[in-house]
Amino acid sequence: MYRIKFIREEKEILVEPGTRILEAERKAKLVPDAPCGGRGKCGKCRVKIEDHMVLACQTEIHSDLEVDTLSGCQEEEILTEGMQRPVAFRPDLKQKKVILKKPETGDNRSEWERLTEQLDVERPVLPDTEIASKLYGCRKEAEEWYVICAGNKILDISREEKKICFAAFDIGTTTVVGYLMDALTGKQLALKSRMNPQTQYGADVIMRADHALEHGVEQLTGCIRNAVDEMLQELAEEAGRSTLDICQVSVVGNTCMHHLFLGISPASLVHAPYNPAISQELTLNAEQYGLHIHRKGQLLMLPDIAGYVGADTCGCILTLRQDQQNEISLMIDIGTNGEMVLGNKTRLACCSTAAGPAFEGAKIECGMRGGAGAVDHVVYKNGKWEYTTIGNKAPAGLCGSGLIDLVAQLYLAGFIDESGHLESGQEKAGVFVLVPPEKSGNDRGVYLTQKDIGEVQLAKAAIAAGIFLLMKRLEITEKDIKRVYLAGAFGNYMNPESAAAIGMFPAGLLPRIQPVGNAAGEGARIALLNEEERKEMDRTVKNMDFVELAASPEFQDCFVDGLCFP
Amino acid sequence: MYRIKFIREEKEILVEPGTRILEAERKAKLVPDAPCGGRGKCGKCRVKIEDHMVLACQTEIHSDLEVDTLSGCQEEEILTEGMQRPVAFRPDLKQKKVILKKPETGDNRSEWERLTEQLDVERPVLPDTEIASKLYGCRKEAEEWYVICAGNKILDISREEKKICFAAFDIGTTTVVGYLMDALTGKQLALKSRMNPQTQYGADVIMRADHALEHGVEQLTGCIRNAVDEMLQELAEEAGRSTLDICQVSVVGNTCMHHLFLGISPASLVHAPYNPAISQELTLNAEQYGLHIHRKGQLLMLPDIAGYVGADTCGCILTLRQDQQNEISLMIDIGTNGEMVLGNKTRLACCSTAAGPAFEGAKIECGMRGGAGAVDHVVYKNGKWEYTTIGNKAPAGLCGSGLIDLVAQLYLAGFIDESGHLESGQEKAGVFVLVPPEKSGNDRGVYLTQKDIGEVQLAKAAIAAGIFLLMKRLEITEKDIKRVYLAGAFGNYMNPESAAAIGMFPAGLLPRIQPVGNAAGEGARIALLNEEERKEMDRTVKNMDFVELAASPEFQDCFVDGLCFP
Repeated sequence: MYRIKFIREEKEILVEPGTRILEAERKAKLVPDAPCGGRGKCGKCRVKIEDHMVLACQTEIHSDLEVDTLSGCQEEEILTEGMQRPVAFRPDLKQKKVILKKPETGDNRSEWERLTEQLDVERPVLPDTEIASKLYGCRKEAEEWYVICAGNKILDISREEKKICFAAFDIGTTTVVGYLMDALTGKQLALKSRMNPQTQYGADVIMRADHALEHGVEQLTGCIRNAVDEMLQELAEEAGRSTLDICQVSVVGNTCMHHLFLGISPASLVHAPYNPAISQELTLNAEQYGLHIHRKGQLLMLPDIAGYVGADTCGCILTLRQDQQNEISLMIDIGTNGEMVLGNKTRLACCSTAAGPAFEGAKIECGMRGGAGAVDHVVYKNGKWEYTTIGNKAPAGLCGSGLIDLVAQLYLAGFIDESGHLESGQEKAGVFVLVPPEKSGNDRGVYLTQKDIGEVQLAKAAIAAGIFLLMKRLEITEKDIKRVYLAGAFGNYMNPESAAAIGMFPAGLLPRIQPVGNAAGEGARIALLNEEERKEMDRTVKNMDFVELAASPEFQDCFVDGLCFP
Repeated sequence: MYRIKFIREEKEILVEPGTRILEAERKAKLVPDAPCGGRGKCGKCRVKIEDHMVLACQTEIHSDLEVDTLSGCQEEEILTEGMQRPVAFRPDLKQKKVILKKPETGDNRSEWERLTEQLDVERPVLPDTEIASKLYGCRKEAEEWYVICAGNKILDISREEKKICFAAFDIGTTTVVGYLMDALTGKQLALKSRMNPQTQYGADVIMRADHALEHGVEQLTGCIRNAVDEMLQELAEEAGRSTLDICQVSVVGNTCMHHLFLGISPASLVHAPYNPAISQELTLNAEQYGLHIHRKGQLLMLPDIAGYVGADTCGCILTLRQDQQNEISLMIDIGTNGEMVLGNKTRLACCSTAAGPAFEGAKIECGMRGGAGAVDHVVYKNGKWEYTTIGNKAPAGLCGSGLIDLVAQLYLAGFIDESGHLESGQEKAGVFVLVPPEKSGNDRGVYLTQKDIGEVQLAKAAIAAGIFLLMKRLEITEKDIKRVYLAGAFGNYMNPESAAAIGMFPAGLLPRIQPVGNAAGEGARIALLNEEERKEMDRTVKNMDFVELAASPEFQDCFVDGLCFP
């Protein structure tokens, strides 16, 4: 065994000879950035050992080592808040007080029947032998029982009132956010977020899916369930509650996150016809999915809509309720994928585009997640480049909002032409240097390559084509769209003017833009707080038009048209 | 550790010092007769060690021993066959072939949805993530899938057809009978029976309940689940099937057996108001109840009717379908309890009497179960007593049918008066010796005491009073009863004329008697073979009148009247 010391994190572990540094980082519970899934392709996992740089995923350990992870293992700033829409507190999880009286002579009904007939719940009440087995002992004339129920299921009965609570989770490809709420009042008790530990197996859903196909879902499923379970413990601790009093957990996430959390292979998502294995709303026993909450606690999975329009989009719909508005609105949620929903109460259509990874740092040479040191805003003013970084740290790379600012400013200032070609005259051909190495927080500076610009063009063209085809499906034009909701972290932090400048969406929509933050996570909360809203959303989703871009003959044309800058 | 050798059974085991012989017998997997539950009261567990008799339940082991169990650990002859009523083969467990086609472009439904929409089953189909996770991999134009389903539940999907089967169990207080059937044809594949291993904790339900209240249900629940699980293995082996292909198991039993099998304390049954904790028909996951069949295999518990009218009575109703007949009929199932159902398609009423134990050997000094050596028929002819024994073995005791023959013959011959008093003039006061010790298979002979006669009077008076009060509830007389079904082993083997002679039922009913064997077990089979019949039975049972004898002011009068011989 060799001793590995991670200098910045002040952690030491022992590893077998031949272990790769990336594995050692995982073993030390760091969260290394390895968007290519450890294939040696992306270069994001670079670390410094003995004064030279190596790729952590490619370097075997054959001696004791001190490792400098540079900024690679830093936590991202996670967007946890969303637009708060006031909803009535009418959860389907309830605690009810029931008086169980001694039966009349000749009343031969079971104790279970006499108890449950008093409950104002859906019929028939599902029988549960384990809970019924609590109904014994000699009874007095009348006994008080507290019944915890959800829908037509009884979760528990007890002689004492319990401080029940529920938790909502937004499992993003990159980040996980969890909210704990009091189930008797609806009040939020605690909030936690962390990186999705699956990141170590690949940055985007395609790489995760590849990993699952190659190695099975166990690692991916195990680490995300474990993360959610740990977060439940942290949430309960912070709120001074017991995890055993958590009776419902709702989960939103894209289809791949959804499948992996459930232990279902994403195989059906990556092969034609790219449909989910199962997509309807699911009410499951949380324990069977690795969550250590109340023994009968429920796991509520919001429905998926299509192969690449997942439960996270349902969360957004639940938050925004476009299906109840007269005005036509467009929702764009750019995470690792870009999902869009357009319409109003008459009709809704949705689609998904493979737009995201570039805006999350993947495939961009100096791209990085939105953590400390990321360049998040760029302006070209009076012939000078100005930028800000997250946490005011020395610049280490470009996060999504910085990336589109930079491309937009380069285009507006004429350094890039309409086709995306970076003008010659740079120090190094095909490379624009924003921050030279000596001013940066790393050893290479922050720059943009011709190839990076191409990635941004692909991503923004996909979004623009999606919007165009959604409008076409509803037979409307941009003038009919009265509001544009930007959901997710990227939508929250990016400068909409930059996005319009590069043609991500029609410039005419600019005045109608409203960032709504983590709308998916907010929807997961609403799903618990109001049963009727959840059911309405479910009906909406079932009737929603799904526009399959890949299958649309016009998509390629629109997409190619959209590659240029406007 | 001491070495204990059971001579007759040719078994040896090692036990800790201080272990009681009864426990050692259980450890050696013998089935000792201990109707009092090891309290030293009944004397049925007598064994011989070093040429003297001891009670196995009271004797600690402090040396190596050779133990002669006499006939105490013998297996009973178990009635497994019942009246066979032909029912249409329409099970709710089905295997269906489905063609899963590649979806049309734009069809964004999940694989699960496209598969299950083709099934002709109850809606909504219950989603199952574990089964849905099989739906992946690149698909051809059309794939064949075999779907095993029951009601709206999918139990399995597979690319190959399975040889599915199902099993029915009658869990009696004393015996357990199991039937394995092919679920594609309904054909019976195998049959097994054994003693209920709970017998070691007490002969009747009251003693089992006491044991459960004192020690918890774990031992009683564990041993019966284990017995059923072992029988499932034996059944599958005999039929050349795999237990993993058993997809449904139906169970009937009295309320106490029902509760103990489910792991529910029978506390509610032994305390006023003597109602079940849970009584409705239950469809459960068999694995959670200790049965190692198909992972998603179902455990189907037929409903209980009242505290002492259990699922076994539902089994009888399913076999006899009194609820479909024009003729009024009476069903009497004398097991460890006596349950009765009277009526026709217009109206049915039922009741339960604490009649049974005496007829199963308990509380009768020379009483024994219907095993080898039990005197099963007795005639007094030309001043001489003649008898037969089961297996033509030397007489060892009286089983139920022998007991009522003997009492009836003593009464008819004038040795007992109307009040049950045994005439003086016997060799020993208050004792009638049928077989002297030297002619018997044990060391004490076979005899009847005055107290034994009293026990028979209590039992038969309870049944007579039950019949009377059922007739009263339906406002009919014995003339209206066109048929009397005698269910269960005792009803099958007993001489109805003897039963009528001692007044167990009105003599006028004699010509209408029909033994129907193990009708409860037959009902458990029908429940699997025909879904509609099971549902009809469930409706019938919900509308049936329950006559609570203990609560009926007339019961005491009827009962006291019925104590005398007619």
